[in-house]
Amino acid sequence: MKKFTFSALALGLCFSAFAQEPVNTAIVQKIRTEGLDKSKAMDIAFHITDVSGPRLSNSPGLKRAQDWAVKYMKEMGLKNVHLEAWGDFGKGWQVDKFYAATTLPYYHAIIASPKAWTPGTNGLIKSDVVLVKADTITDLAKYKGKLAGKIVILDQGTVIRSNDKPELLRYTDEQLTEMASAQPQAAGARPQRAAAAGPANNQRAAMMRQFAMRAAIDSMLLAEKIGLKLTQARGSYGTFFTSNGASYKLDAKPVSAELEVAGEDYLHILRLLRGGEKVEMEADIKTSFYDKDPKGYNVIGEIPGTDPKLKDEVVMLGGHYDSWHAGTGATDNAAGSAVMIEAMRILKAIDFKPKRTIRIALWSSEEQGLFGSRGYVAEHFGTAATNAAPAFNGRPATEAKEAVIKPEHEKLSAYYNLDNGTGKIRGVYLQGNAAVKDIFQSWLTPFDDLGAKTITISNTGGTDHQSYDGVGLPGFQFIQEPMDYNTRTHHSNMDTYDRLVEDDLKQAATIVASFVYHTSERAEKLPRKK
Amino acid sequence: MKKFTFSALALGLCFSAFAQEPVNTAIVQKIRTEGLDKSKAMDIAFHITDVSGPRLSNSPGLKRAQDWAVKYMKEMGLKNVHLEAWGDFGKGWQVDKFYAATTLPYYHAIIASPKAWTPGTNGLIKSDVVLVKADTITDLAKYKGKLAGKIVILDQGTVIRSNDKPELLRYTDEQLTEMASAQPQAAGARPQRAAAAGPANNQRAAMMRQFAMRAAIDSMLLAEKIGLKLTQARGSYGTFFTSNGASYKLDAKPVSAELEVAGEDYLHILRLLRGGEKVEMEADIKTSFYDKDPKGYNVIGEIPGTDPKLKDEVVMLGGHYDSWHAGTGATDNAAGSAVMIEAMRILKAIDFKPKRTIRIALWSSEEQGLFGSRGYVAEHFGTAATNAAPAFNGRPATEAKEAVIKPEHEKLSAYYNLDNGTGKIRGVYLQGNAAVKDIFQSWLTPFDDLGAKTITISNTGGTDHQSYDGVGLPGFQFIQEPMDYNTRTHHSNMDTYDRLVEDDLKQAATIVASFVYHTSERAEKLPRKK
Repeated sequence: MKKFTFSALALGLCFSAFAQEPVNTAIVQKIRTEGLDKSKAMDIAFHITDVSGPRLSNSPGLKRAQDWAVKYMKEMGLKNVHLEAWGDFGKGWQVDKFYAATTLPYYHAIIASPKAWTPGTNGLIKSDVVLVKADTITDLAKYKGKLAGKIVILDQGTVIRSNDKPELLRYTDEQLTEMASAQPQAAGARPQRAAAAGPANNQRAAMMRQFAMRAAIDSMLLAEKIGLKLTQARGSYGTFFTSNGASYKLDAKPVSAELEVAGEDYLHILRLLRGGEKVEMEADIKTSFYDKDPKGYNVIGEIPGTDPKLKDEVVMLGGHYDSWHAGTGATDNAAGSAVMIEAMRILKAIDFKPKRTIRIALWSSEEQGLFGSRGYVAEHFGTAATNAAPAFNGRPATEAKEAVIKPEHEKLSAYYNLDNGTGKIRGVYLQGNAAVKDIFQSWLTPFDDLGAKTITISNTGGTDHQSYDGVGLPGFQFIQEPMDYNTRTHHSNMDTYDRLVEDDLKQAATIVASFVYHTSERAEKLPRKK
Repeated sequence: MKKFTFSALALGLCFSAFAQEPVNTAIVQKIRTEGLDKSKAMDIAFHITDVSGPRLSNSPGLKRAQDWAVKYMKEMGLKNVHLEAWGDFGKGWQVDKFYAATTLPYYHAIIASPKAWTPGTNGLIKSDVVLVKADTITDLAKYKGKLAGKIVILDQGTVIRSNDKPELLRYTDEQLTEMASAQPQAAGARPQRAAAAGPANNQRAAMMRQFAMRAAIDSMLLAEKIGLKLTQARGSYGTFFTSNGASYKLDAKPVSAELEVAGEDYLHILRLLRGGEKVEMEADIKTSFYDKDPKGYNVIGEIPGTDPKLKDEVVMLGGHYDSWHAGTGATDNAAGSAVMIEAMRILKAIDFKPKRTIRIALWSSEEQGLFGSRGYVAEHFGTAATNAAPAFNGRPATEAKEAVIKPEHEKLSAYYNLDNGTGKIRGVYLQGNAAVKDIFQSWLTPFDDLGAKTITISNTGGTDHQSYDGVGLPGFQFIQEPMDYNTRTHHSNMDTYDRLVEDDLKQAATIVASFVYHTSERAEKLPRKK
């Protein structure tokens, strides 16, 4: 504590208030010993990534990983371990075969992946590659009757810029200090965009035209029964980022087979065609769809509470378990999932009997819109009020809905989430909840030596704590070292086990276990935002 | 000129002596206008890389690129354009088909390339992957009779470390100043290794044991008729570096089919097998060998000299044209080749009639040991004396040879080489030839604004100017901005056109053209080392 106080003062920060929030240093020491010296985090991550594979929503890979988690959680002694449906998702999908190469002007095997939820090629196809140039819908007419079975590339490409900045990043002290000194947003404050309304409207109109043009081209390609469409994937140097090429809905419209091609290979073909060279390719792509059970599932497990008055109250921790399909989703988000499973293992290993119930949730379909956590929150805790929205761009109109608050809403103390890669924990985003600042600051004190000491009032978005925050529940995401998450791994084919940093996962699991411990033993539930 | 003097003084450097070496500023301006404003460098590079493809020695890709260069040089008006044999190389080789994927525990297509000069798989093979663990030759016995047709991986892997330094580098002023202030090596000085003789011997013995073990394993795998061997390629994030897996000699010993697998995919398989999981793969690899004409060729072209007394004297410029096979050798060395061709084009475009003959050479088989330039130098200029060497590690003993100096030796003024990637020219390595320092410093003055001003007495190695330097001829390599040459492109699958920086190639061609111009017009040939 002294050491921390000294370094905190040296940084010019003020932590006086949080001294009131107790920290059980004996338990923290047990948690540290188990988490730092006897960790299973990497072994857990190995099973989620290498052994289970890509975990696209409702895919066999996700099912393998879920079944393994259920088995593993049961073996570690968790209770009420089960797969819990959160609602209807749609179709699962996976790649069963991928091969593509240029064969003229010379042979070159291509780095690429089918776009998620696209069909295959129905066996090996061979074709010249046709460059489709169309700025207007009228331009499309000239391709009519000429594209059947062809491999098609549109006349668009983004030049790859090499990066002269480091791709693996860690927060500097200055950056952390800046985060710590962020001010709460005023109630009702909105991002300052009003002044830019004119250009925004123009941009929006341009985007709508672009969407319409793309849709027209895709309809034409489908109607012409092309063999395969090539699209440039974001990324460079053999890393490429994946996306979906069709809807996962049971009633999704049909689409053409589509490859997301690594930038180098895509631009190679495009330059040759633009330069008047003839390009021929062969490709063999097989994908499978899984629609027998369209429901989506989360993995749930508990350490039941033991205090007669508090055991109905719940502390939750979790992260999404689903991933994109070209890598094995190591940093997005096997890392966060492994840390959360390991935190539960640590708490069981030190034989902790919590006052409140501790519950882990491994979400699915986060990548399509936080569906797993949203569905779970709606089922257990409630839903927020929503405004009516007019029909837009094929989306049907929706009616206004009132908020629904369920009985379990008042029983939840907090939800802790991890989903920003392998990077170790540097602190916590308060998500605007100033009332927990001193509590969290106190709980972080034993981990000052592990680099976790920053509390920021700021929000962070894009993941499952928002499902809680959205219905007024305390949901938190930790601040994590950025590493190569944004530059190389997030949704890429290079999101593999190799990217996981053992010491970072150990540190994170240790801190999460301690946060969960203190939340479960606290006299009161965590205070909520006003 | 004033501007330059001022900035040179500002840097605290002293350039007083070289003011005596004349610079034709009117011609420099013409060269700059042609080279910077009317450049064809990128178009030339496009034909060498995208259109011709990988240019492994004696491969069809190299032949395509050579034939294109001959045609292009003739079109621009060069004389004596021809392919000139430099000696016997051996077999050409190329990849005709590459496909590999794991099929158990789940499907995953693999990023890899056959090692150069290895055979294919004779169609699609499917097999479980067998982990071969062998520390001693005795350990190998247990695999006898068990590996026929199998895909084999050795129990060795190198963990991938992510890079927290920038991968695209440019020289700082400090680095250039340090290079400029390097001292000449004392005559006869040798690298200081004597004191380390003991450990070096131990290391050597360990290496010899390792070589022997590897050879024993490879012999066993071949004898057992395995289907395919997997080897970890250096590299990360989808970039992998290639090498050869067999000799290119006509009488090369047979080897097994061998894949160089991107680190992530290789380690994935290795971790699964080490973890006790079953891995199955399928692969389809076809490679072709070309042995009808084992001779190696350089591309030669000239702007004939016009001064009756000097036209038999020659200024040469060049770079190697061959590459490795997984990329299209853009930075190694289409860049240098394109710059040299463009320099010739610039000189023709300004209608330059040189006093001395200007000759370009695009070497082959640099990657296997500077063979193209060495053969050319031996044929035209001479060979250095060599000591006798005892037989070593399968290599036959060689006798001592005396130096041979041919009549053309005294006719060569200088050879300029470019082979360090796309990076622009920052200066010149003097290769220990202090006598040219002031001359080069003077010739660089018009390019101060383009960032080229550093002269270093130091040597640089690893490329074709050494073939000239080795027989006492002035051979120079320019100092080039490092860029991502060492981190990402040098011998990798990601050495593609995307890596070429247009402004850098323009700058380099302009400076080379000016150097060649001044060399050809100088009263005397360039002074040689003492």
